[in-house]
Amino acid sequence: MKMKRSGRLVDMTRYLLTHPNTIISLTRFTERYESAKSSISEDLNIINECFERQGVGKLVTLAGAAGGVKYLPFVKKEAAEAFLHRLGETLSDPGRLLPGGYLYMTDVLGDPSIVNEIGRLIASIFIHKPIDVVMTMETKGIPIAYATASQLNVPVVIVRRSSKVTEGSTVSMNYVSGSSKRIQSMVLPRRSLRPGANVLILDDFMKAGGTMKGMMNLIKEFDARPVGAAVLMETKDAEHKLVNDYVSLLRLEELDENGSLSVEIGNYFNYYGEDDAS
Amino acid sequence: MKMKRSGRLVDMTRYLLTHPNTIISLTRFTERYESAKSSISEDLNIINECFERQGVGKLVTLAGAAGGVKYLPFVKKEAAEAFLHRLGETLSDPGRLLPGGYLYMTDVLGDPSIVNEIGRLIASIFIHKPIDVVMTMETKGIPIAYATASQLNVPVVIVRRSSKVTEGSTVSMNYVSGSSKRIQSMVLPRRSLRPGANVLILDDFMKAGGTMKGMMNLIKEFDARPVGAAVLMETKDAEHKLVNDYVSLLRLEELDENGSLSVEIGNYFNYYGEDDAS
Repeated sequence: MKMKRSGRLVDMTRYLLTHPNTIISLTRFTERYESAKSSISEDLNIINECFERQGVGKLVTLAGAAGGVKYLPFVKKEAAEAFLHRLGETLSDPGRLLPGGYLYMTDVLGDPSIVNEIGRLIASIFIHKPIDVVMTMETKGIPIAYATASQLNVPVVIVRRSSKVTEGSTVSMNYVSGSSKRIQSMVLPRRSLRPGANVLILDDFMKAGGTMKGMMNLIKEFDARPVGAAVLMETKDAEHKLVNDYVSLLRLEELDENGSLSVEIGNYFNYYGEDDAS
Repeated sequence: MKMKRSGRLVDMTRYLLTHPNTIISLTRFTERYESAKSSISEDLNIINECFERQGVGKLVTLAGAAGGVKYLPFVKKEAAEAFLHRLGETLSDPGRLLPGGYLYMTDVLGDPSIVNEIGRLIASIFIHKPIDVVMTMETKGIPIAYATASQLNVPVVIVRRSSKVTEGSTVSMNYVSGSSKRIQSMVLPRRSLRPGANVLILDDFMKAGGTMKGMMNLIKEFDARPVGAAVLMETKDAEHKLVNDYVSLLRLEELDENGSLSVEIGNYFNYYGEDDAS
């Protein structure tokens, strides 16, 4: 339908935001709004300028036959810092401490607005990497995996602790938990990962990294490639971590003698590319 | 910062879409854009007109001290029908049939764009109901629960099959699976549901409804109230369902003699309020 600029701006903004990291041909817009390519290009400039100024992402134009425009989500540094600082404070409540050095995060992970923001932060790091699929282990990492995958426009595969009738045939693997040293198993449906796929591994919590290491090995079993890893919270352990290259949004520091917790910003900003935003 | 109308429209559209079902005071916008209330009201009229014309939701203005504007997501009927029809066709592949009358849906539930659309469809039904929290049982229902809760702007609680150290103290309950007749248990962290909360129950798949019935009883254990239920897929069983009042987006019909599947649209449109959109 024919539309004025004001209506086009609203509808294009909505469309771009709900289709992140997706190439949209300009023809789609010219036909949808019965408008000239030049008008659509001007609209896209206005939208891009606004997104960049607010630090919420940018539009990239791709030339050629397969060309079009692509919205890349991005969280600007100050916004990411403010968010992680607030979240760290919420999680620093000593009442959250659980046996075994775990932290009660169920309420925080149950809040979709927090989880979606975590997804945008993680996506900001990996948006320029070639990622085909996001992997997580059930259960707590699932919302973070979907929030991130939504922004990256890729599917999610969920590793389970035991095989389910609803998943068809599966590949199973044993691994040793890094902190408890117990043997555990992980199971993935056979048809859920194709050979050569580039996999981003996400999880909510990492102690020694045994689960993450297990997922890396599982990915190799499928002849796929682990190309990145991120966790919401890592613990600052004296003991050796089983994985080296991962992004942590937050870090749980040791308790002091008064039993008070301290949650700091993790290594996130070591991976954060300021250039990517400009 | 001071902004022209075109920039305001882009930024307000983005803000409203990422804060559904949330009252936003007009002052927030007048201050953010250093603009007069009359200009902001005009902007909101333009956005609302566009949203309604595209059938993606509407803006509601609330007068008074606690007033402001609220974006209510909505999927228009033709779009909902087209989406469910396409999804039903995808799921009708006989290769998806698993032992026990289950259906392989892992790939579909792993696609965030599909899951987010399912969430918008379910939210369209419940957006005018007083819902405080969305509940689901691990694992497959989790993405649908988050996608819906994001649109309703409420938290998610996840019922688990056994208690975890990371959840703190829990309430456990046994229930009988409606189809397998086995005794199973469900566990919910004690601090995850407050008395009197209005709970929307979501799940991916329902046969006889034993899991859903169990969740309803668990909610009552917490002195909370089940106020609605929805599943992506129900099976058309001759046997009696254990719950009556639920929304199903799709329905798996019996196999015919050739072993071919048929997936039809469920009872969704019996609950769909056309008036809510206008």
